Amino acid sequence: MSSTPAPVSRLAPAVLDRARDLVAPVLRKAVARLHPEVRRVAEYHMGWREADGSPASADTGKGVRPALALLSAEAAGAGGAVSLPGGAAVELVHNFSLLHDDVMDGDHQRRHRATAWTVFGVGAAIIAGDALHTLAHQLLLEVPGKEGRRAAAALAQATSAMIAGQADDMAFEAEDAAAVGLEGCLAMEAAKTGAILACASSIGAILAGAPPAAVEALHDYGLHLGQSFQAVDDLLGIWGDPARTGKPVASDLRQHKKSLPVVAALATPEGQASELPRLLAADHLDEEGLARAADLLDSCGGRQRTLEEAGRHLDAALAALGRADLAEAAVVELTTLARFVTDRER
Amino acid sequence: MSSTPAPVSRLAPAVLDRARDLVAPVLRKAVARLHPEVRRVAEYHMGWREADGSPASADTGKGVRPALALLSAEAAGAGGAVSLPGGAAVELVHNFSLLHDDVMDGDHQRRHRATAWTVFGVGAAIIAGDALHTLAHQLLLEVPGKEGRRAAAALAQATSAMIAGQADDMAFEAEDAAAVGLEGCLAMEAAKTGAILACASSIGAILAGAPPAAVEALHDYGLHLGQSFQAVDDLLGIWGDPARTGKPVASDLRQHKKSLPVVAALATPEGQASELPRLLAADHLDEEGLARAADLLDSCGGRQRTLEEAGRHLDAALAALGRADLAEAAVVELTTLARFVTDRER
Repeated sequence: MSSTPAPVSRLAPAVLDRARDLVAPVLRKAVARLHPEVRRVAEYHMGWREADGSPASADTGKGVRPALALLSAEAAGAGGAVSLPGGAAVELVHNFSLLHDDVMDGDHQRRHRATAWTVFGVGAAIIAGDALHTLAHQLLLEVPGKEGRRAAAALAQATSAMIAGQADDMAFEAEDAAAVGLEGCLAMEAAKTGAILACASSIGAILAGAPPAAVEALHDYGLHLGQSFQAVDDLLGIWGDPARTGKPVASDLRQHKKSLPVVAALATPEGQASELPRLLAADHLDEEGLARAADLLDSCGGRQRTLEEAGRHLDAALAALGRADLAEAAVVELTTLARFVTDRER
Repeated sequence: MSSTPAPVSRLAPAVLDRARDLVAPVLRKAVARLHPEVRRVAEYHMGWREADGSPASADTGKGVRPALALLSAEAAGAGGAVSLPGGAAVELVHNFSLLHDDVMDGDHQRRHRATAWTVFGVGAAIIAGDALHTLAHQLLLEVPGKEGRRAAAALAQATSAMIAGQADDMAFEAEDAAAVGLEGCLAMEAAKTGAILACASSIGAILAGAPPAAVEALHDYGLHLGQSFQAVDDLLGIWGDPARTGKPVASDLRQHKKSLPVVAALATPEGQASELPRLLAADHLDEEGLARAADLLDSCGGRQRTLEEAGRHLDAALAALGRADLAEAAVVELTTLARFVTDRER
């Protein structure tokens, strides 16, 4: 099985490479603790190995979450090493949710490769996700002192919010976009994506024993960053280039996702008066119908409204960094990272 | 949708009712924190509600795990109330694993009702399991002090072992019984069932801040109890009465489970020389073939060997209780409970 290596852009912030180099051995050692059959699925999913067990040079993801964890420890004036169980644990929860999401959504492609359930079966993908979920908690509960406990509690709370957001997302697929509403959509996105990035952005500070004000400022940075990131993801889910996103054209429309551009366009009188409601309600849209729907979402302001939302939350994320006494070098890197992840093409 | 109430036998130990009365409000309050769509699935699965949301009088399970947690706190000389987050958390993990197992095994019936995935869909059952898994950790991490942290670490460790046991169980289904071997089968059963009962049997003591010797003795009691319980479950999976087990006749044989009676019978020269290997390797067995296989498993000693294993582990469980200074009344109840759960017909 061949895979397409997708190196991070040369313009990517240096912290991504730095965090990945630090967290990779921690993650690999943790995953090596799993049952061999479960480990095989996890290592394939993580992009470390091919299905036959040979080493892979696949896309392993950008590693935004470990980078956020690292910088949050440094922002609190600590060494980055203290963040590693946190960065690894958040990355494990993120990957557990991807493994299960791909089963639930019936997705066949992830990071330009066949999804784990299509290769190993539904049961194997479910149990591998469960194993990563448990492993994340084990890593944090092995950190001595009250910091490990606080970090585990923060992770459980974020995971719970993420699950509620996913449940909303699933429920919304069956609902009419007007019934979901802009507010419902934004709340769903804050939970689905914001909560876990808020956790990633504060867990290093928690593990470093930082004061509540620093933890809260970093948490808010991550929450807004997550919302901005999700808005950009929504744009890519409709107008993204499949060669870069690794997903089919207009994948969110095929799946009846009530993402922000859809809900925003249908909230306008032009959107309601157009053929959008009929197109989006259709059980199946051919390529022409998908292109027509995407054009209408744009002309009815769905794209513009989503861009504005992405910008507004990016500003709020950066503003949050000013609300506590944080180490300047880390703030600069957090700013660069926020601009990078909300201005991406994949 | 109608359901068959299955009240616990009049001969059931009083501690089951006592623990259920104490833990039920804690569990219901915890599950009420979930997203409404997720909660609906969880409450159906737990036997509290019908699929349409109306109150159910369904079998909610015997509640062995909360009873073990309660008695372990009392054995350590504490009041039972301290065990409640532990009993509830273990019960949540148990139910998360049942929800996912039913999807992975494609089972249609659980406790005489349609399984959650057949009613709400695979995605809904997966996410409900994930939510219960996270909720279990939240309950323990909300317990103040180092006891909550230790209990959470014990639960994560037991969950990890349970998942490894399930992975073995799944892998064994595709393997030849001779390749699995008696030792492999026993290790799988200790992990799959023993680890979580060991956790249930010690988590109350952990939450009560009991000394390590008491926690270890109770842990060993639960581990052996789990192994004895699993041996009995293996007997029921082949020779159990469907009206009582709520599963089809010889359900484990239909599923090619390498359970103890199967592995033990095939480890004998008579078993190898009989038509058992051919029968058990068949993709599909009709009712006559299933009955023939069950008879041969019996005549080749698989049933007797499993009964002996159940007895041996019950003895070891009771012996473990003598290895620490535990409150006598609780030890009497733990003894009664162990005899009850390993001498069951459903």
